[in-house]
Amino acid sequence: MNPSTPFPAVPPAAIEIWFEFGSNYSYLSVMRIEALCAQHALHLRWRPFLLGPIFKHLGWDTSPFVTQQRKGRYVWRDMERQCEKYALAWRKPSQFPRRALLPMRVAVLASDETWMGRFCKQVMRENFVRDRDIDSPEVVGRILRDLDLDAEAVLAAGGCAGNKARLRQQTEDALALGIFGAPMFRVGSDLFWGNDRLDEALAAASRDRT
Amino acid sequence: MNPSTPFPAVPPAAIEIWFEFGSNYSYLSVMRIEALCAQHALHLRWRPFLLGPIFKHLGWDTSPFVTQQRKGRYVWRDMERQCEKYALAWRKPSQFPRRALLPMRVAVLASDETWMGRFCKQVMRENFVRDRDIDSPEVVGRILRDLDLDAEAVLAAGGCAGNKARLRQQTEDALALGIFGAPMFRVGSDLFWGNDRLDEALAAASRDRT
Repeated sequence: MNPSTPFPAVPPAAIEIWFEFGSNYSYLSVMRIEALCAQHALHLRWRPFLLGPIFKHLGWDTSPFVTQQRKGRYVWRDMERQCEKYALAWRKPSQFPRRALLPMRVAVLASDETWMGRFCKQVMRENFVRDRDIDSPEVVGRILRDLDLDAEAVLAAGGCAGNKARLRQQTEDALALGIFGAPMFRVGSDLFWGNDRLDEALAAASRDRT
Repeated sequence: MNPSTPFPAVPPAAIEIWFEFGSNYSYLSVMRIEALCAQHALHLRWRPFLLGPIFKHLGWDTSPFVTQQRKGRYVWRDMERQCEKYALAWRKPSQFPRRALLPMRVAVLASDETWMGRFCKQVMRENFVRDRDIDSPEVVGRILRDLDLDAEAVLAAGGCAGNKARLRQQTEDALALGIFGAPMFRVGSDLFWGNDRLDEALAAASRDRT
């Protein structure tokens, strides 16, 4: 994608997912990607980043699905159809895009933990199925307890200065990579944008292995 | 999509393609759609419209692939991969988006002609493979002559006041339908956006038949 970028390429047989809990198309991919990586025998690297600063960099106050009304109308209809296609539950959130700083910090902290996938899927369900405020300690704490974790300890670690800085850095990395939306997949040094390109990204990662 | 629209639904076993010769993702669909409709035994309705007035309505001077540089960079890489996937030739046009008023007028005129598909595919090839100025009477005239048509007569009919008004009307219809980009497919009263949704639109049209 950007041969001039100093960013190291993703290693063979691996794929990165760059995502945000507030992003509806990220919902589709976060729910699907673990099982697909298992099928393809690919290593999955979670890369949570904040979309807000990316939109700001592009000169936008909020999601284009809000500012462009006709595109927004279309997107909610498209989401109904896509969720039906992938057999995923769906309810249009009463607030969009939802602020997700708290669970995003936990996601950065947990990126290499075995419970990362289960945590991310549950946060996505709270936003796009149960229509809950995913930026609240109550909701995130309950998700963590349901995973048999020490919720208070995880939330405290997520909120420490070093971890906050990691999320900021990862968002700057997204900018440096040329990322302009979510979800985005990285294979080698190639980018694939949107849940619509997940299958092609997986195929590319499988090819790169050989 | 818009239950309140006064627009008549597309009849069963039919699909509409709303497209522009200047649009790179329209190129992918225009090259593919005739054969796919034949496979699915669907009636194809061509609906050329001008993207410029739609962008203007959205408050944009030109294509977002031009104004959003990082998205633009991505799109040209994506086009290489998509053309490889569909075994289509591809050369990034030296001018984008290319003005296409002249061939668009011929397309409106020819929408129900047997040579419409061949004409559209050749205009697309001139833009996205041969990198030619598709808004010139020389290029469009040659395409028409290669189809064994009276190029001068067709160009004259395309430029008459009534036909110009038809293209303007079709562009206003696109706005009334909530169209915000190209290609867009219409099945019943549902919209599907982008070459990525062509397969789903065809499946929906095939289901609607029964």
